[in-house]
Amino acid sequence: MPAKTDHDARRRDVSAAVWRVLAAQGFGGLTLRAVAAELGATTGLVTHYFPSKQALIVHALEVAETHTRALVPSLEGVHGLEALRQALAAVLPLTPEGTEINRVWVSSWDAALADPELRALEKARYKRWRSRLKPLVIEAQNDGDLPTGDPDDLVAALAAFTHGLVVQALFDPRTFPRQRLLAVLGSHLEGLRP
Amino acid sequence: MPAKTDHDARRRDVSAAVWRVLAAQGFGGLTLRAVAAELGATTGLVTHYFPSKQALIVHALEVAETHTRALVPSLEGVHGLEALRQALAAVLPLTPEGTEINRVWVSSWDAALADPELRALEKARYKRWRSRLKPLVIEAQNDGDLPTGDPDDLVAALAAFTHGLVVQALFDPRTFPRQRLLAVLGSHLEGLRP
Repeated sequence: MPAKTDHDARRRDVSAAVWRVLAAQGFGGLTLRAVAAELGATTGLVTHYFPSKQALIVHALEVAETHTRALVPSLEGVHGLEALRQALAAVLPLTPEGTEINRVWVSSWDAALADPELRALEKARYKRWRSRLKPLVIEAQNDGDLPTGDPDDLVAALAAFTHGLVVQALFDPRTFPRQRLLAVLGSHLEGLRP
Repeated sequence: MPAKTDHDARRRDVSAAVWRVLAAQGFGGLTLRAVAAELGATTGLVTHYFPSKQALIVHALEVAETHTRALVPSLEGVHGLEALRQALAAVLPLTPEGTEINRVWVSSWDAALADPELRALEKARYKRWRSRLKPLVIEAQNDGDLPTGDPDDLVAALAAFTHGLVVQALFDPRTFPRQRLLAVLGSHLEGLRP
């Protein structure tokens, strides 16, 4: 099935070009023309894959999701507060790839806030993230390592802390190098210990 | 000086139109053409004020800063942890205007991450915010209401918590209505009490 293989390979090339545009210029720089230039192809070819700007953005979010999933840690053999610490650390911009992924997500918020379909996708993404964190928070509460109280509020607060730290680090990586991000996360969790 | 007055009034009209475009469409929708349409004027007139897209964005950030300053609470007669709570609460999207301002700032991050000049402005804005919070954090530490340790780390963590909560609330206002935002902030600060 050479035709199928060619088609799949071409799709992968297009996705890779979308990612390179996003990583360099964010969603504000994501245009059919920019993807075509990155691919060394015509805008017409890119339009074949993405009939509209909206279709291109939705695909870009899928590409970002794939890159993000690759960074989710296994957490096998860890438990409670330490599992939570590892899960939150995995979201921080500790490596060039982690920085690239965060930069893409933060830059997606402009388009996502302006469009009901994209806004619903981001809302659902947040819900999925909070529901993955919730059992770890409950474990840590049961272990006496986090304060009692509504676990949903604690989850929201920890997700908030982590994303807010991501944003500060993206704008000021010298003030927030890898070691300091890990130290701020560690002392934040210790500070919550009852 | 009628000419001066006319010029000032026209500038105010232009700034108000920039703000309405930002509030409705974010930075991704901010174009000379959109401002002209909002103003009921020609693109040529808008170009007279903003010779480039970059000049328009820089002005939009100044307009956002003015709207934001109007929401900074006085904190007169309050102290330590309670002053900190009020300072952080004032940043949350608790009112339609607070929501509008936050939506504009979050949407500015796409353009700001893609441009060195805008990135430097946002980095400086974060530094100013953290340095305003720092004396309140130190007061609360001295009162025994916050854990000891590096106050800069605590400030960064609290700024992070607040902005991360803003983002979740913007995408999901039903899950994060005003009362819950205040409750999450309150219990977060209580959870940090040594």
